[in-house]
Amino acid sequence: MGSSDTPTCPDGTPYLPPPVLPGQPLASVDTPALAIDLDAFEANLRTMQDWADQHGVALRPHAKAHKCPQVSLRQLALGARGICCQKVSETLPFIAAGILDIHISNQVVGPAKLALLGRLAPNAMLSVCVDHPGNVDALSAAMVQAGAHLTVLVEVDVGQGRCGVADSGQAVALAQRIQAAPGLTFGGLQAYHGTVQHLRTRAERAAVCAQAAERAAAFAQALRDAGIVCERITGGGTGSAEFDAASGIYTELQAGSYAFMDGDYGANDWDGAMAFRHSLFLMSTVMSTAKPGRAVLDAGLKSTTIECGLPSVYERPDLKYIAANDEHGVVTVREGDGPALGEVLKLVPSHVDPTFNLHDELVAYRGGMVAEIWPIAARGLSR
Amino acid sequence: MGSSDTPTCPDGTPYLPPPVLPGQPLASVDTPALAIDLDAFEANLRTMQDWADQHGVALRPHAKAHKCPQVSLRQLALGARGICCQKVSETLPFIAAGILDIHISNQVVGPAKLALLGRLAPNAMLSVCVDHPGNVDALSAAMVQAGAHLTVLVEVDVGQGRCGVADSGQAVALAQRIQAAPGLTFGGLQAYHGTVQHLRTRAERAAVCAQAAERAAAFAQALRDAGIVCERITGGGTGSAEFDAASGIYTELQAGSYAFMDGDYGANDWDGAMAFRHSLFLMSTVMSTAKPGRAVLDAGLKSTTIECGLPSVYERPDLKYIAANDEHGVVTVREGDGPALGEVLKLVPSHVDPTFNLHDELVAYRGGMVAEIWPIAARGLSR
Repeated sequence: MGSSDTPTCPDGTPYLPPPVLPGQPLASVDTPALAIDLDAFEANLRTMQDWADQHGVALRPHAKAHKCPQVSLRQLALGARGICCQKVSETLPFIAAGILDIHISNQVVGPAKLALLGRLAPNAMLSVCVDHPGNVDALSAAMVQAGAHLTVLVEVDVGQGRCGVADSGQAVALAQRIQAAPGLTFGGLQAYHGTVQHLRTRAERAAVCAQAAERAAAFAQALRDAGIVCERITGGGTGSAEFDAASGIYTELQAGSYAFMDGDYGANDWDGAMAFRHSLFLMSTVMSTAKPGRAVLDAGLKSTTIECGLPSVYERPDLKYIAANDEHGVVTVREGDGPALGEVLKLVPSHVDPTFNLHDELVAYRGGMVAEIWPIAARGLSR
Repeated sequence: MGSSDTPTCPDGTPYLPPPVLPGQPLASVDTPALAIDLDAFEANLRTMQDWADQHGVALRPHAKAHKCPQVSLRQLALGARGICCQKVSETLPFIAAGILDIHISNQVVGPAKLALLGRLAPNAMLSVCVDHPGNVDALSAAMVQAGAHLTVLVEVDVGQGRCGVADSGQAVALAQRIQAAPGLTFGGLQAYHGTVQHLRTRAERAAVCAQAAERAAAFAQALRDAGIVCERITGGGTGSAEFDAASGIYTELQAGSYAFMDGDYGANDWDGAMAFRHSLFLMSTVMSTAKPGRAVLDAGLKSTTIECGLPSVYERPDLKYIAANDEHGVVTVREGDGPALGEVLKLVPSHVDPTFNLHDELVAYRGGMVAEIWPIAARGLSR
């Protein structure tokens, strides 16, 4: 940079200001920017914690949904037992924020990940999942080498058919192998059913959750028959938490998206129970109105993902988001004049998890005024 | 962090090592990780530069595809005139790397973006696009306030129907407005046709490109008729560059993906011309083999996007990637035993632009050994 009056960061990069400052109106935010309505967010947190409390199960909200320690800290303050992460590297900013009780709800495979786990395990209360005897041995060797100790859960397949063993004999054998392995403690079962979460009717979700709980109970019984104590049965998501909590089988819930909602969960039929509000919005600016009947927004595939559908324009039935390009969102005007060039619109992302993973900061606002900017500190930590 | 022997960064965050180090085998990389085969990459760069040189058009490769200054520097070293960015904030790491000739191939709308443009314009050779008279006035006011100067192109719609004016009269009026505006210089036309890029047959692309070039020529003629000099007609992408270069109408090409290729461009019929190789791979580890006939990988929606299709497993016809979850990729084994737990596979992303935008670093390798790690420094800079 030639000019001395261009503000630069210490590394010489020209300075990019934050998208907005606390105390400023949300509508003045530089876009695209991810924003959270604190009133809706806090109501969502309370709804799920109350449900867990009423049913005597622990809430361990999943941080993979948001990757933001400030969100987890507020869930813990309301009574959550700990948090879930999905990757070893993802735990780092949460541990740095003092959040030490973390269940990694996934298999940890590969020498670099095992070495990192060995470095972290002495400093936190970590647990991981396994579904392969070789992985039990590798985890044990890593813990012995690090002089560390780790809680290990057996992941069982209760219907999704992704990870987890499907056979009780395999589950018992893995639990015994963990019990016998130096540096490891058997911690229970993970019984997560991902595909139930977005079954649209509440009746469908209830039916599949009942089958999953029955299968989880059979795995737990097989452990008891083998003389193995199973302290935890962990699982559940936003779409199934209602039924998982009431099942009497699960001891803790891993839901994460409930704090925000999204287009995909919003399309579920909630039937009056467990009502959550949209708290997460993608702020976007109209950058072109050259084509009659259309507006082009400055938020596309690099600001929101579309594998669960396109985003919608919040409380604007006159507008329909019809196409996402890399950096453009195309909106059709269904009635009226449409938005003006420069107008800032609120979009509802269709899928919160990968959308959070595109952004470095979350603009927290209340009543239209910005309260705080929260770092999405685990963004990109997928190892 | 309680333990003093856990390595930490200066801000107290526990230390995450790089995924691999130069001199180590690529196969030892911690995953998910984005990697680039330098031999294929360099061949691709040469192919496009040669094509541009042979046809007497400038190459101005688009940096939105990769967001990595190290890539742009190599394109410039081979003869590229400058680069394109899609957003103002995206230019920052490129300017910091000394790349000063940047065309922002997009409208810049909103006070924060205009203020940033005003700070950057004195320090670089920037140009932007307009398709609205109000935006011309706003750009002019921002440049006057900043004491800066900016080159402005009129974006014309040559068939895509997204941004750009569709009428020659409007284009002439915008060019005249730019010429009359303090702080602005009229720089020519942008005539980009996005939807032609992935028409599958070469004949289809040739036909639509011919129409687009004809429209671009008509806009340029209207400018000449009004006594306005049009120095640049910029546009073109990887799928259309062959025809745009040969049209005699375009003066510069904006292609970006050609350096890497992806599943979507790979599905185009190239018919022997402009052959590009896959140079970009997503490295992924098999993390579960619990279900017979399947393997679960550690790379899903947070490591590659799927709006243009699922990734494929490179040079492994025995494996088919069938589903991407947030952090999981599900692969079916079509024949044989399938991969072992811990095996590292190469995936071909279906769409490079948003996939680069998920990663902070690019592992550059040659012949199976890691050469360098390049920061994807503009990742997430979408404002």
